[in-house]
Amino acid sequence: MTTNHDVQVSVLGLGAMGSALAAALVKAGHATTVWNRSTGKTSDLVAQGAISADTAGEAVRASRLVIACLLDHASVHEVLDPLSGELAGRTLINVTTTTPAQARELAAWAADAGVEYLDGGIMAVPSMIGQPGSSILYSGSTAAFDQYKPLLDLWGTSTYFGEDPGLASLCDLALLAGMYVMFAGFVHGAAMVAPSGVTAGEFAAMATPWLTAMTGAFQGFAAVIDGGDYTVDGQQSLEFSDLGDILTATSDQGISTDVVAMVQHLIQQQIDTGHGEEGFARIMESIKQPG
Amino acid sequence: MTTNHDVQVSVLGLGAMGSALAAALVKAGHATTVWNRSTGKTSDLVAQGAISADTAGEAVRASRLVIACLLDHASVHEVLDPLSGELAGRTLINVTTTTPAQARELAAWAADAGVEYLDGGIMAVPSMIGQPGSSILYSGSTAAFDQYKPLLDLWGTSTYFGEDPGLASLCDLALLAGMYVMFAGFVHGAAMVAPSGVTAGEFAAMATPWLTAMTGAFQGFAAVIDGGDYTVDGQQSLEFSDLGDILTATSDQGISTDVVAMVQHLIQQQIDTGHGEEGFARIMESIKQPG
Repeated sequence: MTTNHDVQVSVLGLGAMGSALAAALVKAGHATTVWNRSTGKTSDLVAQGAISADTAGEAVRASRLVIACLLDHASVHEVLDPLSGELAGRTLINVTTTTPAQARELAAWAADAGVEYLDGGIMAVPSMIGQPGSSILYSGSTAAFDQYKPLLDLWGTSTYFGEDPGLASLCDLALLAGMYVMFAGFVHGAAMVAPSGVTAGEFAAMATPWLTAMTGAFQGFAAVIDGGDYTVDGQQSLEFSDLGDILTATSDQGISTDVVAMVQHLIQQQIDTGHGEEGFARIMESIKQPG
Repeated sequence: MTTNHDVQVSVLGLGAMGSALAAALVKAGHATTVWNRSTGKTSDLVAQGAISADTAGEAVRASRLVIACLLDHASVHEVLDPLSGELAGRTLINVTTTTPAQARELAAWAADAGVEYLDGGIMAVPSMIGQPGSSILYSGSTAAFDQYKPLLDLWGTSTYFGEDPGLASLCDLALLAGMYVMFAGFVHGAAMVAPSGVTAGEFAAMATPWLTAMTGAFQGFAAVIDGGDYTVDGQQSLEFSDLGDILTATSDQGISTDVVAMVQHLIQQQIDTGHGEEGFARIMESIKQPG
């Protein structure tokens, strides 16, 4: 019978995220070796059943599968470059946040060292790991994804994008971009109402269901973008999407218009080039032009 | 016994939204008189049971309660200025999109004419009227809101903000600001992944649950903003929120960085003034400074 103990795994990096990933592995019964550059982060995990390694090399040698969850791309090289010999023949799943170009560079480095490389982008905060709503994006070695998918599924929904090791990171960063921009929009709204005595909490109570409902528009925009025709019926036009009232109300409240002006600029660029009667999704064309 | 026919109501303006509002009133059994500047928009509503008025004056005289859902602030004056005598003693609920300043101006005009004035901001698209998720914000006359709340509730959840007639419009525009900024963030993400062969539809399938989940952060930001202390524990710091990787990946894909640079600028402004270790919600302070 196959048990979880058949997959031994080592986790390098025990920040909040690395610790959450390791804890989920321990909980599922995997023999889990953990290492962190600075000591003192392993005791909780050891109490749960993890094995503490004194060096990264010791952790790498302990398992066929090595998870890297480090600070950044430079940290990955700093920790793993001296261990390329030990890593040969093993699988490296790197969930450290990197750019697509950095992920591709690490994949090339791993190929040179004879290491199977899978890159991961975690769409969750540490407390969500292993919970509903946690989603992790992967790209790179198909063999590694197929072999370890049951283990990866312990952390959240696992989605594989293909052999290009940069794709998971690209989608990760694109989703994070959407998140940070949405956060800026929320805080802008809170800043608009604040001078009139509406608290941020009151605004959040309205904005949370409102913006949740409005995510329902994404598939419609996507259908227009993928269809390649911004003139199809049933869309809100760019001219109708004029943000003049919002900009005026923002100025009248004595706050910066920068956040909303960014969107108005995307809209205006398309109106100025004669596309005002086309759908809102056409702001895609403003974004596709490098600045 | 009180029946819906005890409240007669007239609707001025039969665009997509005005028609949806009138249809909900007719469906609930209200004696509903409808008028539109250009003819030919009343036949569907008349077939459902509405009464068609040939002039705005005829519509105003037909009911104690008048709903205005016109193109803009100027249209409201154009239609109602000649009718101030007929409107005296009646209630005007104006759901035309206006700025807070315009709503206050209309309330003052109504007060001069002896008209009870309630301003409304509709947080729904026409197809949502009367359906779950439809929300309408009101401010202005408390008496009008209290008297007509059962009727208003036919359109969606009715929320009253207070006597300041500009408040509903302010909250409306603040929520719309959040929506348009979120849409720009979504389209930016779709533009990032497009050159690598990920369709907008595939991106929307990821972004919809992701951004829905991330609206869960709003109340946390709001608690920090309302608490007035950006240094409280448990927040993601501004320094950790550096968007450098997202900007690099955006440039690498050959598209404009403007959307994300807007957020990075809000973050950097706080880091530059020595607040990098404080929480992300502090971007509020960047927005509070007029540009």
